[in-house]
Amino acid sequence: MPSRIVIVGGDGFCGWPTALHHSRLGHEVTILDNLSRRAIDEELGAQSLTPICSIEDRIDAWKEVTGNSIEFLNVDVSKDYDLFFSVLKEKQPKTLIHFGEQRAAPYSMKDPTRKRYTVDNNIGATHNILVALSHLATDVHLVHLGTMGVYGYDEAGIEIPEGYLTIFLKDGEGNMIERQILYPSQPGSVYHMTKVMDQRMFQYYAKNDNMRITDLHQGIVWGTQTEETRLDDRLINRFDYDGDYGTVLNRFLMQAASDLPLTVHGTGGQTRAFINIQDTVKSVALAVDNPPARGDKVKIMNQMTETHRVRDLAKIVSDITGSKIALVRNPRKEAIENNLSVSNKTLLGMGLNPITLAEGLLEETVEIATRYFDRVRTDTVAATAVWTADQRPGIVTEAALDRGKSIQ
Amino acid sequence: MPSRIVIVGGDGFCGWPTALHHSRLGHEVTILDNLSRRAIDEELGAQSLTPICSIEDRIDAWKEVTGNSIEFLNVDVSKDYDLFFSVLKEKQPKTLIHFGEQRAAPYSMKDPTRKRYTVDNNIGATHNILVALSHLATDVHLVHLGTMGVYGYDEAGIEIPEGYLTIFLKDGEGNMIERQILYPSQPGSVYHMTKVMDQRMFQYYAKNDNMRITDLHQGIVWGTQTEETRLDDRLINRFDYDGDYGTVLNRFLMQAASDLPLTVHGTGGQTRAFINIQDTVKSVALAVDNPPARGDKVKIMNQMTETHRVRDLAKIVSDITGSKIALVRNPRKEAIENNLSVSNKTLLGMGLNPITLAEGLLEETVEIATRYFDRVRTDTVAATAVWTADQRPGIVTEAALDRGKSIQ
Repeated sequence: MPSRIVIVGGDGFCGWPTALHHSRLGHEVTILDNLSRRAIDEELGAQSLTPICSIEDRIDAWKEVTGNSIEFLNVDVSKDYDLFFSVLKEKQPKTLIHFGEQRAAPYSMKDPTRKRYTVDNNIGATHNILVALSHLATDVHLVHLGTMGVYGYDEAGIEIPEGYLTIFLKDGEGNMIERQILYPSQPGSVYHMTKVMDQRMFQYYAKNDNMRITDLHQGIVWGTQTEETRLDDRLINRFDYDGDYGTVLNRFLMQAASDLPLTVHGTGGQTRAFINIQDTVKSVALAVDNPPARGDKVKIMNQMTETHRVRDLAKIVSDITGSKIALVRNPRKEAIENNLSVSNKTLLGMGLNPITLAEGLLEETVEIATRYFDRVRTDTVAATAVWTADQRPGIVTEAALDRGKSIQ
Repeated sequence: MPSRIVIVGGDGFCGWPTALHHSRLGHEVTILDNLSRRAIDEELGAQSLTPICSIEDRIDAWKEVTGNSIEFLNVDVSKDYDLFFSVLKEKQPKTLIHFGEQRAAPYSMKDPTRKRYTVDNNIGATHNILVALSHLATDVHLVHLGTMGVYGYDEAGIEIPEGYLTIFLKDGEGNMIERQILYPSQPGSVYHMTKVMDQRMFQYYAKNDNMRITDLHQGIVWGTQTEETRLDDRLINRFDYDGDYGTVLNRFLMQAASDLPLTVHGTGGQTRAFINIQDTVKSVALAVDNPPARGDKVKIMNQMTETHRVRDLAKIVSDITGSKIALVRNPRKEAIENNLSVSNKTLLGMGLNPITLAEGLLEETVEIATRYFDRVRTDTVAATAVWTADQRPGIVTEAALDRGKSIQ
């Protein structure tokens, strides 16, 4: 049923297509955004491969193409609580979707300033939202974009459940007692740490204030366009490929288009969870339509559709494009190899029908990487942020040297 | 061995006697404090029962009495990172003790402004400290004052371990796999939630940056004076008894001194962990002397020495003072009754010899509550902060009415 939805961070990579999708479904959409993603592009000297219009032009184009209005308000939810609260009071949304966080792990590790910004912004935004919603007289459903990165990886190969883990404890008499707990987290960066802290705040406010909260633990998103962003060139979504914001698949595609080898960190044995951006917006819509009851615990769903090892992903891209593969030193502090088995039955049960990487990747290569190749800035592709001071970026590993591969 | 110690929050209730104790042990002590505890007194129209000198007069008195110098710098660690980092770089401390957090649960629940302040201040201070220490070239031991409140209460009556819980998981073949995890937290207020979030940050930075971190999960502190604060009236420590900052025992003592009934929330069936302020400073000194090795996980110790039910505590005070007991509506959202069994073997193993409530309480009553009674402001004693909007403060429960007891 159409309703009013406020989308915090609705100008970003996931936020913008989500705003369009919900507007198309008939919801009245208000975007609150401080346009920080655009400012960080300036700061890093990077830009989306696809040309991104101003938010005003995006909204005008949407009105022109569909007749639907989307409202935009420039609000920094992490800083300007009073303005944010007055907007909520006026709008009285049924749902608030929260994308208002700095979302790049490498950016969050660059230096003290960016570490502190990531924590201040992400924790500030999430807590301001929780405080504001708990003090509104109405009952708003909060939908938050979390990350699969809160789980970390368990070497025992136990399937990662949807948020809650069944454990057993030994009591004083040696009897095994069953409990369900929030999955013990193992964040791999300051960014991931903020999502772990978000989880703890959600648990508290759901319990103390009976707030209705859905937390979507998303895998790595691939793909650029959705049904809605394809309607007009001015609606196009971001394609980030720089060392900070570009996720692994986009980096491979740009390296392939630039005739550079695909740079795989370490052995490429890291297994990661993936989802297409079109499935992201559909999943969020399913979450919006299926809120937990008031008094329920936080509803956690794993928003991912398939898993791949990074080196297998490089192989897929290499097979399509003919590019070579180079193993480079891993700037992250993480296990060399890991298995990953993830439950995603809730979203599938609600009817999500995933787009697979194997079927969508070629289209992505042609539609985006090739079409906009003249906009590429090759100097921003390699990752430069390191996880600890004793790591050096961009240096090839001995294994890579053995194979005669290197990016510099 | 004497060394340089920086104490963040060294002007507060635990921080001040800790600073004196370490100065007396021969350490070079630098206090960093923004004097926020004094500002909050002004804001609340409350004050310590004991008269607190300015930080300058305190430090002058200490120099006069002992010949030792303590340095004070007015720094807001949560806000002024650059100044804080430059101080650390200059001082090159061996240990940083972190008391720089808003520490009253009722204050953290009063309204949106105080909820937000508590999160911004506590998370900002802790994260700035972690970022600064991880970017110093030297290896500093961080000692943090946590709270028993991160654990919550488990109705199975399993003893609360020191930070880490042994659990069992069922793998794919149905085998039980043993794991050690951070104890699943159940914070009872926004304040406690910030300490849970602190824990998560400590886990991350200890692992990623090999930082040496000790987290002391402290029970409710009772008592006012220590060996050092007794040396001169100008060195006296705080005695808070207002509804926000006064802990349960101080409230009872002031109610008794004012011929008011002792107000017990609910049935008084809440069991809590306690420690005397003298044992607090000794425990911190033991923690300073026994840092974890670099690369170790966060060292967690339970800094408490005994447990009591709140109604039993009221009974002890009532027996000493002849006061009556009134059951009032509980403003907190918590279990009516709980058991509590806590391991504190690490500090006892290091030689802590606890002062018990039974032996120290009468002295506290005479030395503080009676001596300074002319300074009491009875209007600030009752708790007014409520945990959710549907709770009303200060209203007597039916049980209390049945017994003919009420505070208003």
